[in-house]
Amino acid sequence: MQYDWDRPREFCGVVGIYGDKNASFSAYLALHALQHRGQESAGIAVSDGVTVRKKLGMGLVSDVFAEKDLKELHGHIGIGHNRYSTTGASAELNIQPIVVRYKDGALGVGHNGNLTNSQTLRRKLEARGSIFQTTSDSEVILHLVAKSLEESLIDKIKDAVRQIEGAFSLVFITNDKLIVVRDPNGFRPLALGRLGKGYIVASETAAFDLLGAKYIRDVEKGEMIVFDNNGMQSYHPFPKCTPAHCVFEFVYFSRPDSRIFGDYVDKTRRKLGKNLALEDKETDADIVISVPDSSNTTALGYSRRSNVKFEIGLIRNHYVGRTFINPTQSKRSSDVRLKFNTVGGVLKDRRVVIVDDSIVRGTTLKKLVQTVREAGAREVHLRISSPPIKNPCFYGMNFPTHEELIANKREVDEICQYLGADSLKYLSLEGMLSAMPSEQGQTYCTACFSGVYPLKVKDLEET
Amino acid sequence: MQYDWDRPREFCGVVGIYGDKNASFSAYLALHALQHRGQESAGIAVSDGVTVRKKLGMGLVSDVFAEKDLKELHGHIGIGHNRYSTTGASAELNIQPIVVRYKDGALGVGHNGNLTNSQTLRRKLEARGSIFQTTSDSEVILHLVAKSLEESLIDKIKDAVRQIEGAFSLVFITNDKLIVVRDPNGFRPLALGRLGKGYIVASETAAFDLLGAKYIRDVEKGEMIVFDNNGMQSYHPFPKCTPAHCVFEFVYFSRPDSRIFGDYVDKTRRKLGKNLALEDKETDADIVISVPDSSNTTALGYSRRSNVKFEIGLIRNHYVGRTFINPTQSKRSSDVRLKFNTVGGVLKDRRVVIVDDSIVRGTTLKKLVQTVREAGAREVHLRISSPPIKNPCFYGMNFPTHEELIANKREVDEICQYLGADSLKYLSLEGMLSAMPSEQGQTYCTACFSGVYPLKVKDLEET
Amino acid sequence: MQYDWDRPREFCGVVGIYGDKNASFSAYLALHALQHRGQESAGIAVSDGVTVRKKLGMGLVSDVFAEKDLKELHGHIGIGHNRYSTTGASAELNIQPIVVRYKDGALGVGHNGNLTNSQTLRRKLEARGSIFQTTSDSEVILHLVAKSLEESLIDKIKDAVRQIEGAFSLVFITNDKLIVVRDPNGFRPLALGRLGKGYIVASETAAFDLLGAKYIRDVEKGEMIVFDNNGMQSYHPFPKCTPAHCVFEFVYFSRPDSRIFGDYVDKTRRKLGKNLALEDKETDADIVISVPDSSNTTALGYSRRSNVKFEIGLIRNHYVGRTFINPTQSKRSSDVRLKFNTVGGVLKDRRVVIVDDSIVRGTTLKKLVQTVREAGAREVHLRISSPPIKNPCFYGMNFPTHEELIANKREVDEICQYLGADSLKYLSLEGMLSAMPSEQGQTYCTACFSGVYPLKVKDLEET
Amino acid sequence: MQYDWDRPREFCGVVGIYGDKNASFSAYLALHALQHRGQESAGIAVSDGVTVRKKLGMGLVSDVFAEKDLKELHGHIGIGHNRYSTTGASAELNIQPIVVRYKDGALGVGHNGNLTNSQTLRRKLEARGSIFQTTSDSEVILHLVAKSLEESLIDKIKDAVRQIEGAFSLVFITNDKLIVVRDPNGFRPLALGRLGKGYIVASETAAFDLLGAKYIRDVEKGEMIVFDNNGMQSYHPFPKCTPAHCVFEFVYFSRPDSRIFGDYVDKTRRKLGKNLALEDKETDADIVISVPDSSNTTALGYSRRSNVKFEIGLIRNHYVGRTFINPTQSKRSSDVRLKFNTVGGVLKDRRVVIVDDSIVRGTTLKKLVQTVREAGAREVHLRISSPPIKNPCFYGMNFPTHEELIANKREVDEICQYLGADSLKYLSLEGMLSAMPSEQGQTYCTACFSGVYPLKVKDLEET
Repeated sequence: MQYDWDRPREFCGVVGIYGDKNASFSAYLALHALQHRGQESAGIAVSDGVTVRKKLGMGLVSDVFAEKDLKELHGHIGIGHNRYSTTGASAELNIQPIVVRYKDGALGVGHNGNLTNSQTLRRKLEARGSIFQTTSDSEVILHLVAKSLEESLIDKIKDAVRQIEGAFSLVFITNDKLIVVRDPNGFRPLALGRLGKGYIVASETAAFDLLGAKYIRDVEKGEMIVFDNNGMQSYHPFPKCTPAHCVFEFVYFSRPDSRIFGDYVDKTRRKLGKNLALEDKETDADIVISVPDSSNTTALGYSRRSNVKFEIGLIRNHYVGRTFINPTQSKRSSDVRLKFNTVGGVLKDRRVVIVDDSIVRGTTLKKLVQTVREAGAREVHLRISSPPIKNPCFYGMNFPTHEELIANKREVDEICQYLGADSLKYLSLEGMLSAMPSEQGQTYCTACFSGVYPLKVKDLEET
Repeated sequence: MQYDWDRPREFCGVVGIYGDKNASFSAYLALHALQHRGQESAGIAVSDGVTVRKKLGMGLVSDVFAEKDLKELHGHIGIGHNRYSTTGASAELNIQPIVVRYKDGALGVGHNGNLTNSQTLRRKLEARGSIFQTTSDSEVILHLVAKSLEESLIDKIKDAVRQIEGAFSLVFITNDKLIVVRDPNGFRPLALGRLGKGYIVASETAAFDLLGAKYIRDVEKGEMIVFDNNGMQSYHPFPKCTPAHCVFEFVYFSRPDSRIFGDYVDKTRRKLGKNLALEDKETDADIVISVPDSSNTTALGYSRRSNVKFEIGLIRNHYVGRTFINPTQSKRSSDVRLKFNTVGGVLKDRRVVIVDDSIVRGTTLKKLVQTVREAGAREVHLRISSPPIKNPCFYGMNFPTHEELIANKREVDEICQYLGADSLKYLSLEGMLSAMPSEQGQTYCTACFSGVYPLKVKDLEET
Repeated sequence: MQYDWDRPREFCGVVGIYGDKNASFSAYLALHALQHRGQESAGIAVSDGVTVRKKLGMGLVSDVFAEKDLKELHGHIGIGHNRYSTTGASAELNIQPIVVRYKDGALGVGHNGNLTNSQTLRRKLEARGSIFQTTSDSEVILHLVAKSLEESLIDKIKDAVRQIEGAFSLVFITNDKLIVVRDPNGFRPLALGRLGKGYIVASETAAFDLLGAKYIRDVEKGEMIVFDNNGMQSYHPFPKCTPAHCVFEFVYFSRPDSRIFGDYVDKTRRKLGKNLALEDKETDADIVISVPDSSNTTALGYSRRSNVKFEIGLIRNHYVGRTFINPTQSKRSSDVRLKFNTVGGVLKDRRVVIVDDSIVRGTTLKKLVQTVREAGAREVHLRISSPPIKNPCFYGMNFPTHEELIANKREVDEICQYLGADSLKYLSLEGMLSAMPSEQGQTYCTACFSGVYPLKVKDLEET
Repeated sequence: MQYDWDRPREFCGVVGIYGDKNASFSAYLALHALQHRGQESAGIAVSDGVTVRKKLGMGLVSDVFAEKDLKELHGHIGIGHNRYSTTGASAELNIQPIVVRYKDGALGVGHNGNLTNSQTLRRKLEARGSIFQTTSDSEVILHLVAKSLEESLIDKIKDAVRQIEGAFSLVFITNDKLIVVRDPNGFRPLALGRLGKGYIVASETAAFDLLGAKYIRDVEKGEMIVFDNNGMQSYHPFPKCTPAHCVFEFVYFSRPDSRIFGDYVDKTRRKLGKNLALEDKETDADIVISVPDSSNTTALGYSRRSNVKFEIGLIRNHYVGRTFINPTQSKRSSDVRLKFNTVGGVLKDRRVVIVDDSIVRGTTLKKLVQTVREAGAREVHLRISSPPIKNPCFYGMNFPTHEELIANKREVDEICQYLGADSLKYLSLEGMLSAMPSEQGQTYCTACFSGVYPLKVKDLEET
């Protein structure tokens, strides 16, 4: 899996390990399996029961950690984090896990998600004289733990997480404990598994597969689990509330081979494709192709239902890295071509359906449509496996501003014209939701499409 | 496209540019498009009409060249090379292009292929007092040019290439010329295109697409083309001989979006899949999956013809790099899992056909079969889109020794047992060849399967 | 100037710039001039009146900062710090300046010296729920400022520095201010100069010379100076107390070309040498040599007074870096030889006086004596320009523990025997102090020699 | 010792090791001791009797070689080279030792000096079809060896070195031999020592001291020594000729602790200083200072003879590296200040004699004079321990062109005026030569001063 560097979405992946004598190596492999959730930076903190050590760095997991680093991080408890996010100078500052010293020793945290009252909390803490060394939400959480008047660490953390709002899948480390918390809405996924005689939690189950760990169940929404010498203990520090799982994890973000929110991503994507075909009966096309790799299964589902032939019409170059194009070359070439090339024999003279997962700004897709036309496609029909994105996300998907969201400014036919396609259809909200698993009462956050936010954004109100 | 680092095959890609004021930038993008042909090292040499400059390095194209490097390599003539090859100390020594000074100034060369009489030639040259700074074939060619008694450079190069035997797609650079030569058997592909008002040659046409260049035709087997102020001139310095195109370029090596030996790779792979299905009528399976990405189209072809459903059952992690597994973890995990994960919902309780392109040692495939079984597959049937590899290649595919080739030691049923599959079928030689384009009289080298070598290997005879 | 990497002394250098449009470049050069005070890490924080930016790194100043970094750090206010200190994992964590956000915006600090009540303060802060991200004293100071109940920043800083005890030459940066503070005992030097139309403060005046800045005066002990739009304002937030300047700054640490505590280091060292000769009238030697470079002037002073000829008998190799010796070679070679070689013609058959500044563990000097003997010296007499070091320093010189200080365990004659010298003499405490400037009422800390500590070490009492 | 990066002189250092099981580690330390002879690049080639391996790189010895590299270079025969020389792109190409394959196996060479007929030889070789991969003299030598019609390697090397002219101290390595050759004029130094049970040769004896090797004698001018299983054998392949040792090795280049051309450098420099004083009786000055470190002993010699007090008035910053000054700062600061600072107390109101070794362009010295004046010196008298440099060197000192040599364009009083000094005196040619050892019939090359070249420069004649 490889995601687009040019799409401004804030991703993160977290992992927690308890009871594995090579905790650092396991966290490392898990982060590797979660690499698609954050390519900007990575970090691991490990405890051997006495001392918490950490290693952080900018770049891919394979660049940040040398074998020697992992050996130095010896211990049986570990947390890991990777991140794709903020820009410039602050990037290096905000690499996680953050590890601090407080009254009772060392405390570290890794966070996937976004708090909706962090600015509010931060202002309160600063008013009482707190200093901050990062600009991340997560440092706020550590302050709340350290300042809690509760006696035990477990109660302090309960106290702290009850004060924060928003999306959070958290992994904490102390000298002798791993503690994980998932927000009461369950915005982001977090799975629990058995790793040998120990335990593992991770954003996605693909990490378990790589480690040979066995999936037990999801960490429940609103659940807090403590792993220590006494084994594993579960708490529910929050009042119950309606689930608001992020649909985008299914639509685009998670790996197809992961199981989140109760089902395999792959299976849901296939249904998205089928529903897309169901809503699109009149289209008369020769072939359907996907924008690889995130829409592969979706396109396959579309093909099955529509009986339009599935073909591989775009080849993705996975070596992209920091390749650049000279300005004077850009007349003939384009940055989209660095990632995708067309397969001439497949597209020539065909009426082509392109299945993609979503449209944010539309700039990449516009160039892609043009590239497919240049390969000889007679017609180009765009089918998007989610509704138009019209609203910002405050729970961890870092979409651009209102102004930059193309669907916020234009109607579907205007977008189609802008993109240069012969037709454009989005999957309906109902079509999308009916593809999502709901057997266990799952409900979903659709704020970016519908504008209905399941949780107030306190920071916005106060600004 | 991304190829397996653990398969010991010697690859290379070459590019030549003439008449483009940003020759270095164009060579850079072309090498990026040819990255799958060699990830170990890359190099570019450029001339501004007066001076030949070069920049070489170990690693991916995006790692070797910074923007500043390409700016320093100013000029309108350029050659580029990337390589996946020898190990250890010699690797750095042998990065191409090799650029030397001789009587008439600077001369550089990049070489894709393998000479079959280079040791013989080298011994002769050494007997006359020549010294060598690399262990590569290509240095021999430069000696032959410099030592030629002919007057003009063009005649010197003709003289030199008439002495060498084997597989060679060559790009030469001098202060004011680009010269390209393809061996008379046409083992390796080499295409000619128009780049703005200039020209480009490259191992595969995918490089043209990225640059917005237009495909003109293949450089003919046995053709030598000179590009300079006088335009483009074609020579045929060799006696005619039967074509011996490398089938492996179609089966595995070239990009599906490239056009080589007269047709799109993608189209040929689809036919390989169809032929594989034709030879395999009795198989009763639920789904067919490919080993991504090289077998995707082949599996699609198999599915079309056999009516077994095409599914995506293996997810490839494209971030592999230099990721490592701790020895103590290897009980539960494996290096194959670093690259491939299974999609649980797709494979569980299914009878699965896996389509792969070839089997060299079988070690990776054995682990893959096991991984697919662990994901719940009820049956695992391996279908290989080429015959058993029983013989070494002397024309540029660096297979391991006889002893390591699994098909050299064992019968098909033994291999099947070793791999742990329920059944194993190879495509027949005829089935494979009938998928290859032949409209223009193309014939192919099948030495690694059949043991019939189209060209004597003089180096072997003399040893 | 280059100091010994194998001598465990905690050094730091600080610089502050106000009113120079290239504050980052000036801080960089100043740190370069102060490089001998800390080779482990370096950092610069700069403000353009609106935003505080920083760049930190491990290594020499010339390694940490590229020209591009300094350009990005644009602004007219800057602070810089270099450090030679703690080992291992904590090193990277503790690079200064530390910059944090608090209620009123950004605040950064660089610190030369050592607090004697930082553990006590830290425990108090932690008890109130503060979290710490470093293990350095300086973070405590920032907490105190942020937590102060005073209104203005100036009063907050006064409040904070009145709570800390020990040795501190501090430089603070905010969006629009440079603030510097020197402890009331004046342990470490801090000089004030004019830099164009702006100001500079630095640990040593050698930094002024490199920048073409003019020395105005020392920052007074117990003085706090605020630089902002209103110019420069001086405060004295501490009660008066007796000066306790660190003699080691004169004896060994500061550059000979710097002016500290009221006089040139060079001049004081010369007097140390003269006093050493005065106390050593009976020695009958042929030549006197120094251990370069710190004892050069001292040896010259000794020569003048004793009429023993000054010679250059040891050549220092300034390229040491991370050069290593193979264990099997260490029979013939030694790590001391990596730094010093003897001049054969100078030492052979001579009775040699070696002048060195101090003896900590004695291991290096022991090898040096042996090396000088191997060069043919007939007699080797060691003369040390300070008394025996018997006690740890709590004000910033990070001597090893009691047990490792050779003078703490052995009498002078035993040390002489251990070192393999023919005689060993230390300068007396009186002899040392009479070489120090005292015209302006300067008095000195001699704790490491005398055991008389001018300031209680609260942290020790509480442990 | 540290030499000026801004003085364009071509330096090199060579070392050869035979019979030491850690040949790579010994070569490494020797290169470290010879670091002042070349800071641009370094390389080591080692043989274990079967295979020659090498490691080359840009930068200081401590940067180029990691411990792991030296372990991989296992063997008992080794050669090493460091280099300070050509600029830009060619630098990396020309790192030595150069190792090639020829008829009889591997052959490597390291070269200190400069050939005066290399262009002539190269043209001849090229005319016969040879190709060159570097632009260095040394590759010519390897061609001559490989092309020799002699039978044995020893005779081939004799044949080759008889054809070359100029300055050369050469170390060759083959699988089983170390061979060293010194040119018949003996331009550059080369010493022979005993290293345990094996042998060492090196440009300077300081390398022996670091390794604990014992000096035996100099390799004689015109001598060739072969080290192999049969021990050490000496040959004299050249006709006798008058020695022409480079005076600059004594004046500036070699380390003071080395013994070259029959005596210690330190001793000769002292004599240079004394002679300088003898020729300068009328100067009435208060103090004499040196430009550290190369002129330290010379200034001491001047002081002894003149009774002018020796002082340390300039402090050298040894951390220079790649430190840079912002253009806008250069009004107040200067690049000379990055290296040298003045000691205020020493220079103020004094009449100062500055002793330096030579003047090439004069730009650095001009700034230094100004710096000393700014420190308060009342008078500044320059005394140079060699005559005016008026002519280029063709034997290895890479002075700038005629035009850039200040003494070539101006009379002494004009130079004095340009430099801003109160007086300027050069040591006379006789004064310089009488300081050099001559007991064993040594005579010297003074071409750069006198214009009398001891050896024709064939390359110049042919151009």
